[in-house]
Amino acid sequence: MADVNCNPDLASNKLSLDEIRDSLIRQEDTIVFCLIERAKFPLNPKLYHRNHGFTGSLVEFIVRETEAIQAKAGRYENPEENAFFPEHLPRPLVHPRKYPKVLHPSGASINMNKPIWDFYFNKFLPLLVADGDDGNYAATAASDLACLQALSRRIHCGKYVAEVKFRDAPHEYEPPIRSQERDSLMKLLTFEAVEEMVKKRVEKKARVFGQEVTLNNTVDGGKYKIDPLLAARLYDEWVMPLTKEVEVEYLLRRLE
Amino acid sequence: MADVNCNPDLASNKLSLDEIRDSLIRQEDTIVFCLIERAKFPLNPKLYHRNHGFTGSLVEFIVRETEAIQAKAGRYENPEENAFFPEHLPRPLVHPRKYPKVLHPSGASINMNKPIWDFYFNKFLPLLVADGDDGNYAATAASDLACLQALSRRIHCGKYVAEVKFRDAPHEYEPPIRSQERDSLMKLLTFEAVEEMVKKRVEKKARVFGQEVTLNNTVDGGKYKIDPLLAARLYDEWVMPLTKEVEVEYLLRRLE
Repeated sequence: MADVNCNPDLASNKLSLDEIRDSLIRQEDTIVFCLIERAKFPLNPKLYHRNHGFTGSLVEFIVRETEAIQAKAGRYENPEENAFFPEHLPRPLVHPRKYPKVLHPSGASINMNKPIWDFYFNKFLPLLVADGDDGNYAATAASDLACLQALSRRIHCGKYVAEVKFRDAPHEYEPPIRSQERDSLMKLLTFEAVEEMVKKRVEKKARVFGQEVTLNNTVDGGKYKIDPLLAARLYDEWVMPLTKEVEVEYLLRRLE
Repeated sequence: MADVNCNPDLASNKLSLDEIRDSLIRQEDTIVFCLIERAKFPLNPKLYHRNHGFTGSLVEFIVRETEAIQAKAGRYENPEENAFFPEHLPRPLVHPRKYPKVLHPSGASINMNKPIWDFYFNKFLPLLVADGDDGNYAATAASDLACLQALSRRIHCGKYVAEVKFRDAPHEYEPPIRSQERDSLMKLLTFEAVEEMVKKRVEKKARVFGQEVTLNNTVDGGKYKIDPLLAARLYDEWVMPLTKEVEVEYLLRRLE
């Protein structure tokens, strides 16, 4: 029941790859739950059209306004959290926690939320949900926000992954960082066997958490609330590549 | 992947107990997911203290403000949704959907959110989460709101349950309604065998959804993110009694 963060233990201030990995694994559950909940609703396309008299779509309005409230409660003081609309966020009304400064300052500001927003709404969501409009716009948008925040947190944990990998083997990373070789860094950060394992585990989680549980069935019934292969594909095509992009961006600035 | 609502099919305007039951079963999954997600965080008691210079606690501030945004997006036009702070909710900015008027007008306004708020924060939450403060107030409050909304939606579906039960057997319900016999109505609405089954199923869902899924384990590993018995107790002590209270309150007004 303990909280698992990418952030290191506040007292010890040590950054361990094991802890980060535990956090990433736990975040898979959150992401799968969020997808299952979003898939309760059909697409509800009106949420995404720019015709409501706002300065954007209805979903943009809801995300921007909800982020503002959460900013007042200090959400973005946590360096693991990145806003989708970071401009003009209100200041926290509560005394912010002092988070340990484990990230390199110039990497801390990397924000990958624009590509996350784009792939989520334009590519992934139409694959996840049924067509149609049931009018539950506010609940659907709240569900989209939960998905976006879970994905964003997971992907931006790449900063911590990169930091700990750099600290563990600076001699390996320094040459490609100095020569700003993006491809060499990407190669150093890529472990195909690990990625395959993550995809398989996410697929299994979608199967376990997305099954219809009844008192009679003792085994997995074969009917899922989301397609388990789509959950794996989400990781394969977007989550893992974007996490690595965060890692590369972070490392490129690591010696500034 | 279809949406399941307590609301009847908009086109057919028929209200079936089977549909409502499917919705209640699906809502169990949502509630269990929400509990698991809340249990990632410790109690974070500062959220619940009245010392932040707001007119209430920090969690009240976040819930009230978030509800206001969702009201603008039309959330509370849906008769299944009830706000925790229904006073001064802003009007929807989007053209609200026309929901069919299946509920009796005087019962439609029943709002059980005050007792839901009270049991959730004062009795249930301390049993669900670990003690401690990790500073993630905004994320924790968002998680509380998700739990509250899921519980509220489930409990207020009692209005639909009561309406369909009344329509199916008005001769049975009319006498105790006319004499305003609360206890007789409660007796008519209570099916202990069904309640036992619901508790068992919720416990099983907490076990299935709360397990740690790894690529190696093929069966339930015995370690859960929340206590499955506590999920059953939530239903036993609070969710089912409050749902029935909604049903009784609804029926008491049904012949007005």
